[in-house]
Amino acid sequence: MGGYLFSVFVLFAWVPHIYGLWPIPRSLETGSVALKLANSFRITANVPHPPSDLSDAISRTVGHLRTDKFERLVVGRGSADSETIQHARELKSLTLALAPGSPVRSISDEAILPIESRSEEYTLHIPSDGSAASIEANSTLGLLRGLTTFEQLWYFFDGQVYTLEAPVSITDSPAYPYRGLMLDTSRNFFPVTDIKRTLDAMSLAKMSQFHWHATDSQSFPLVIPGFTEVAAKGAYSSLMSYSSKDIQDIVSYAGARGIDVLVEIDTPGHTAAITESHPEHIACSHASPWSQVAGEPPAGQLRFASSATANFTANLLTAAAKLFPSKFFSTGGDEVNTECYANDSQTQSILQSTGQTFEQALSGFMQTTQGALEKAGKTPVVWEEMVLEHNVTLSNETVVMVWISSQHAAAVAAKNFRIVHGPSDFFYLDCGAGEWLGNDVSGNSWCDPFKSWQKSYTFDPLANITPEQSHLVLGGQQLLWTEQSDPSNLDSIVWPRAASSAEVFWTGATLPDGSPRNVKSALARLHDFRFRLIQRGVSAIALQPLWCALRPGLCDGDS
Amino acid sequence: MGGYLFSVFVLFAWVPHIYGLWPIPRSLETGSVALKLANSFRITANVPHPPSDLSDAISRTVGHLRTDKFERLVVGRGSADSETIQHARELKSLTLALAPGSPVRSISDEAILPIESRSEEYTLHIPSDGSAASIEANSTLGLLRGLTTFEQLWYFFDGQVYTLEAPVSITDSPAYPYRGLMLDTSRNFFPVTDIKRTLDAMSLAKMSQFHWHATDSQSFPLVIPGFTEVAAKGAYSSLMSYSSKDIQDIVSYAGARGIDVLVEIDTPGHTAAITESHPEHIACSHASPWSQVAGEPPAGQLRFASSATANFTANLLTAAAKLFPSKFFSTGGDEVNTECYANDSQTQSILQSTGQTFEQALSGFMQTTQGALEKAGKTPVVWEEMVLEHNVTLSNETVVMVWISSQHAAAVAAKNFRIVHGPSDFFYLDCGAGEWLGNDVSGNSWCDPFKSWQKSYTFDPLANITPEQSHLVLGGQQLLWTEQSDPSNLDSIVWPRAASSAEVFWTGATLPDGSPRNVKSALARLHDFRFRLIQRGVSAIALQPLWCALRPGLCDGDS
Repeated sequence: MGGYLFSVFVLFAWVPHIYGLWPIPRSLETGSVALKLANSFRITANVPHPPSDLSDAISRTVGHLRTDKFERLVVGRGSADSETIQHARELKSLTLALAPGSPVRSISDEAILPIESRSEEYTLHIPSDGSAASIEANSTLGLLRGLTTFEQLWYFFDGQVYTLEAPVSITDSPAYPYRGLMLDTSRNFFPVTDIKRTLDAMSLAKMSQFHWHATDSQSFPLVIPGFTEVAAKGAYSSLMSYSSKDIQDIVSYAGARGIDVLVEIDTPGHTAAITESHPEHIACSHASPWSQVAGEPPAGQLRFASSATANFTANLLTAAAKLFPSKFFSTGGDEVNTECYANDSQTQSILQSTGQTFEQALSGFMQTTQGALEKAGKTPVVWEEMVLEHNVTLSNETVVMVWISSQHAAAVAAKNFRIVHGPSDFFYLDCGAGEWLGNDVSGNSWCDPFKSWQKSYTFDPLANITPEQSHLVLGGQQLLWTEQSDPSNLDSIVWPRAASSAEVFWTGATLPDGSPRNVKSALARLHDFRFRLIQRGVSAIALQPLWCALRPGLCDGDS
Repeated sequence: MGGYLFSVFVLFAWVPHIYGLWPIPRSLETGSVALKLANSFRITANVPHPPSDLSDAISRTVGHLRTDKFERLVVGRGSADSETIQHARELKSLTLALAPGSPVRSISDEAILPIESRSEEYTLHIPSDGSAASIEANSTLGLLRGLTTFEQLWYFFDGQVYTLEAPVSITDSPAYPYRGLMLDTSRNFFPVTDIKRTLDAMSLAKMSQFHWHATDSQSFPLVIPGFTEVAAKGAYSSLMSYSSKDIQDIVSYAGARGIDVLVEIDTPGHTAAITESHPEHIACSHASPWSQVAGEPPAGQLRFASSATANFTANLLTAAAKLFPSKFFSTGGDEVNTECYANDSQTQSILQSTGQTFEQALSGFMQTTQGALEKAGKTPVVWEEMVLEHNVTLSNETVVMVWISSQHAAAVAAKNFRIVHGPSDFFYLDCGAGEWLGNDVSGNSWCDPFKSWQKSYTFDPLANITPEQSHLVLGGQQLLWTEQSDPSNLDSIVWPRAASSAEVFWTGATLPDGSPRNVKSALARLHDFRFRLIQRGVSAIALQPLWCALRPGLCDGDS
């Protein structure tokens, strides 16, 4: 009978009563029975010799269930539920299990598998009668994703942790494996603690990739064994650099949260900071005026035509690659300024003596550096210019990040490269905050306007891709370039906006009832996600007046 | 001889070596002698029976000098100064004195004097030989401004607090008395601690007015004696309201920092929150769709045509006025929606029975409410519509806030009202963050683009004013409407941008050397101001990469 009522409900209208779910699962059924967590509530892993990071994840979930203390976003904040909660059945346990035959690996190991072979799917059942809830998956990574969903199902009122929507039945898996966030730690520095807080927030949105744009022309904060002089002289200060221990700390923190760390050492452009330790490898170093020879100050690019420089770079990348267990490694490749090399007598004399063109020399550099990475077991990642603007030979395995325009995905797909979407017209978190260059009276940012969460949310991963090319799309990410950001505004400029693409690439185009994903129904859930981040110490910004957050639909613009 | 060198220096180029000064004083002379604070450094007030808030201000300054620990924004952060600091003379004391015949009043009392009679001018001298520094003023408020300047002159390195620019000689006074910041605490709530941190930052920029847009349609957080039901039912919650004690706390905290609190209870529009306690006074309350009858949700406006409502409002304002010692009190008056009243049968029947037009009834309401305020000793403040869009009779004493467009100042001046500039095209801090209304796929904010500090900085207070009308300009302010703000992003959305207008209205059009104020030279000082805020726990955003902040001029856009 309960079953009959339940089917009627899901047949006629999928109403996302459980506003807390972000990203929304691929399949979701909910009832209308109240359930509260027993004081003795515990989570058990039916996993032989559970990896320590799975045990840690369970402990974190139990902790969040107790400490989130997040009241429902309704008028009265749950006070109307008081009577119902009092009489609700208690849920005493949640059991985690791996599907028969699944290998038992740590979450960290699962998170860094080759991206196509990661297993993030899970099922979650919460019966309404108080009997044990369950999460099943094919991997510990899938169990982690299920635990994260479980955390988002519960609200707090007057000492009780409860849901009004049992039974809950979820079958879930991501539409795309790459759901990322890029952070630039070169233009301004971010302490490890800020990065960890960001990883926590990413994990709550089931994001899978932290793209760490670690170095650039402004500073080189990565301390790389064998090349420690580069950070010693190129970081803002010894306190503003990442030691091997810091890097290990970040990588293992991320891995335990189901996040792979894709580090980028941008080359051959965006390398002025290397001039402090290795001036011999840098062309047009700190040239003035910078605007002739660089996209932004300070100017300086690797002398890629020089074999000494190519070897130095390859060795640097190889040494850096050892610090990161990820299969991915990005060598950047954006905005190589040709004027810089045209003015560099050393580069010109090499080109002349070898008889190579600019593009031939660049191709040689790429083969040396990418070759070294592949030898180190890495899959190279590059920005779109390396395949769209330059005539360089790249392995077909190379992953290409589209940033200049969402429309450029078409050209990358046409060349048969795998794609990560990060287009500035949808996903750049820094846009719209005014010009940061000095002496500009009223200038706006180069990529105005501000990319609202709504704009990002409407991104279609297959918009410029043919059906035959769709397998090339790994996913996408929002990106924070930090000309105008540092720890002071990290949370507020990133959250909750960066969760927008997390749902685009997890949930795909449709809601659990088959209707198209849309900003109208997403808003209430994004409020929930945002307020839960606040409860966890992440200063995500308010999307609306609280009056609106408590009254879904009453502040819509179409009324 | 030192004097000779010194004059040569100031004659040929005014270089703002003391980047820390924000706003820049009207007159400034500096030398090139190093001086450090003695361990025994103390500040003495040669003031008979010094008011306790002056003593507190002195203690705060001594505290900041010790705890700011702000290193110079240069490559090496002051390490190159080490030898110089070691051999520098010590400054042992700073003496504060009032000019002969000056009354001895508390800073708080001085800060709330009628705006034209406030005295903020001061002189500051720091000899280079280690003999006592001095600040002289005509009021304790002037002494406070001098102390604030003194705090900005010093840097920290390796345990020492020092300047490289003694002797320092400053004669300073504000170009305009009203240098404000508006904060909306209705759309989202801000705890007292956030407001206090904001007041601290304002005081560091010598700002004089906190315009507290306390109430609006979304919530009514002001607990007003005799009308406590309005907040009890109209605030978001009892924890999200300001008790009389909270208000007193904010007012006295502000006063001690030289800031007058101009509270606004917006009427007759923007009052939907009153409907929770007094539905009889509110027309088109929570009407749906809201867009026909309100600028934003929820709809609801005072039934101004009703004499009962006019009297209720007058009594409410009178009771609120008692909580605030300021001479100023704003009754708002923006965005009165005529459609709301056209649909309100009660209003229509009153208009019919009294034979009044809409405008006549509004004028009557304004006379009742403004009259009550004037009886309570207040100078009424209104938004521009009350003089530009409505035909209501207002006292000539009324201060008018321009917000819709900077060009509207001309029309307000033509009507001979005093003006506070707060135009959305220069000073709205919320612009450019995307649409906050729901169900908007890619909408931008109504007042795009983002108002950068540079844009605000170029504001000319006399741009639309004839020389004969210039006396009408009291000053201006930046404003934060909080549809998309709450404590999570208060600091980052306000600072350092709000300091931009603080310098516009303190310093006026010219730098101490007579050259025009300009964004190029301002940037280095604004960096300094921003980093000092960071040292004080205010999360002001980064204006540029640190690389640029350490190298003034090298990241200019004109190179």
